[in-house]
Amino acid sequence: MADARHRRITAVRERLVELHLDGLLVSSLPNVRYLTGFSGSNALLLVTSRDLLLLTDFRYESQVAAEVGDLARIRIELSSLWAGFWEALRGADGLNAVGFESAHLMHRDFQRLLEEGDRWAWRPTVDVIEGLRERKDAGEVAAIRRAATVAQVALESTLREVRVGLSERQVAGLLERNLREAGADDFPFPTIVAAGERSALPHARAGSRAIALGDLLLLDFGAICDGYCADITRTVVMGTASERQREVHQAVREANRTAREGVRAGLRGKDADAIARELLAARGFGEAFGHGLGHGLGLEVHEAPRLSRVSESVLPEGAVVTIEPGVYLPGWGGVRIEDDVHLGADGPEVLTDFPRELLELA
Amino acid sequence: MADARHRRITAVRERLVELHLDGLLVSSLPNVRYLTGFSGSNALLLVTSRDLLLLTDFRYESQVAAEVGDLARIRIELSSLWAGFWEALRGADGLNAVGFESAHLMHRDFQRLLEEGDRWAWRPTVDVIEGLRERKDAGEVAAIRRAATVAQVALESTLREVRVGLSERQVAGLLERNLREAGADDFPFPTIVAAGERSALPHARAGSRAIALGDLLLLDFGAICDGYCADITRTVVMGTASERQREVHQAVREANRTAREGVRAGLRGKDADAIARELLAARGFGEAFGHGLGHGLGLEVHEAPRLSRVSESVLPEGAVVTIEPGVYLPGWGGVRIEDDVHLGADGPEVLTDFPRELLELA
Repeated sequence: MADARHRRITAVRERLVELHLDGLLVSSLPNVRYLTGFSGSNALLLVTSRDLLLLTDFRYESQVAAEVGDLARIRIELSSLWAGFWEALRGADGLNAVGFESAHLMHRDFQRLLEEGDRWAWRPTVDVIEGLRERKDAGEVAAIRRAATVAQVALESTLREVRVGLSERQVAGLLERNLREAGADDFPFPTIVAAGERSALPHARAGSRAIALGDLLLLDFGAICDGYCADITRTVVMGTASERQREVHQAVREANRTAREGVRAGLRGKDADAIARELLAARGFGEAFGHGLGHGLGLEVHEAPRLSRVSESVLPEGAVVTIEPGVYLPGWGGVRIEDDVHLGADGPEVLTDFPRELLELA
Repeated sequence: MADARHRRITAVRERLVELHLDGLLVSSLPNVRYLTGFSGSNALLLVTSRDLLLLTDFRYESQVAAEVGDLARIRIELSSLWAGFWEALRGADGLNAVGFESAHLMHRDFQRLLEEGDRWAWRPTVDVIEGLRERKDAGEVAAIRRAATVAQVALESTLREVRVGLSERQVAGLLERNLREAGADDFPFPTIVAAGERSALPHARAGSRAIALGDLLLLDFGAICDGYCADITRTVVMGTASERQREVHQAVREANRTAREGVRAGLRGKDADAIARELLAARGFGEAFGHGLGHGLGLEVHEAPRLSRVSESVLPEGAVVTIEPGVYLPGWGGVRIEDDVHLGADGPEVLTDFPRELLELA
């Protein structure tokens, strides 16, 4: 872990030289965690060619020492981090042009840079650290694999407990307890449990609807282990599936398989998306696949790269992405099957192997 | 609900007149929800004197129609919301000075305003809607009360299930399942379950530590109902409490009671904080109370007003705030007792009534 952090910090410093920057203010918490290991909810990080300064508040005094060690200089602040930041900056030599993260700094804080920090030249940067984060190292892939295992163990337990008559919310509660039992540190997003016609809503939450015989039941959820996210979806049927349910599920399953086997580093995001989209369109479900094929997974559950109709960016070797085709028929229901795939040097490596056959729960 | 939204929108329009603004771009999702009822994860809202325009994406097409109805004009976008925003703005008459939310707009999006929106005069605003949100109406207090009831029902069930030998994470899983059973739509923050010496970390998450006989066990968690958050903490002992545990718990309980009964609208945040702080300092625990007394509760679990040593702002009538004194002794453990209090016209009204006596779990 310490080695990976040193390598990452060195890579950022090389990028700063290319960008003619003397330093970078990191305000994105996942980016702070990636470089230092600190997992608290309040931090600023300053990276310069020779120094690494991490500011957090008194609540995290022992945690930051345990997580970061002597990798960075640590400043503990009693209230706002900015007072300490200005003090540290004034004491630093040779700083003139300093970058900040344009996508992770609020206008209010940008105003501070212009007003309180007017002796430095502030330069917006984009994706300096996110670009590094796209390519996962072996330790990161292992963490996502652990999270995927936790998610799958929890899903298996939960499907044994699901019964007609339970509400979506009750099923979410069973799933969340089973995720904790299996070792989840946290949940990366609000658990989706959507029954019947509600499964046609790609962003349904778990609600009060009771599960009925004949319903499609869509479960989309995740686990976080050591900061890294897994994200998986399966759709089952309560009782015996109808012909239409079988047909839709079969189409989505084929789209999932074809995309899972066909995705690889070097493809553009839109070309990966097209693998599943063309198959579903050929089955008459082109309009019914109303979102992108997938997204990167890592310290955040939605990160680069994107697999969608409009994504021109090339999938890098080492990325971990979701493959999640779906078919949504308003008023009837929807099916989504989602797996997590590592784009390795030798092709796609699937991190989730939970059965994809249509399960009919008694 | 519809009435409350109309009143809120009218209040924002009155504020825009005072600020000499022709419109306000709302980018904070809780603020969008407060004004329109829309609970999706992607939205922009433009408020002008005569118009209310809500932009979201295709994933939320049926949800936004159900939640917002004809309160606002709704635009569904296929990819970025900004293209639709510029188109709508170009078609609007009489717009010159338009406000934006300085604390909720990333620098990257602020750059869009300057570059793509250079025909309008963009003015940073602060707390236009947050200021309204501080004072809860009867419907909001009722929602927080429902969430508080859910949290208390779940806590009662969970304390019956807690056993020596379970891990913090397992207890979090029981609690989360019980919260769902009791009707929680979601959890407002990652559940804290901290045992033994870990209870001294004010921001511990639930981890792998097994609960042992003699441990303090701190549970800090919440529930969301209809968008509104409750937040409660109790600290129990596994087995028979030691004298020191009793003494610390008693001091925190007295600080909680004194602050709960003494807090009221019209006090400054720092004066409310002082009620508990002075009592703990008199018991020799001044240094051990290492955070503020509380924070506002509403659509967000941490919102205005703040009750802390440095808060000069006056607590408004109608606010709902947490009262959460704590004593943290590094290496030994900590005790926190947190309740939710509505600052009504007739004084404080406590929304959480779970027993505060020191529970000794067998």
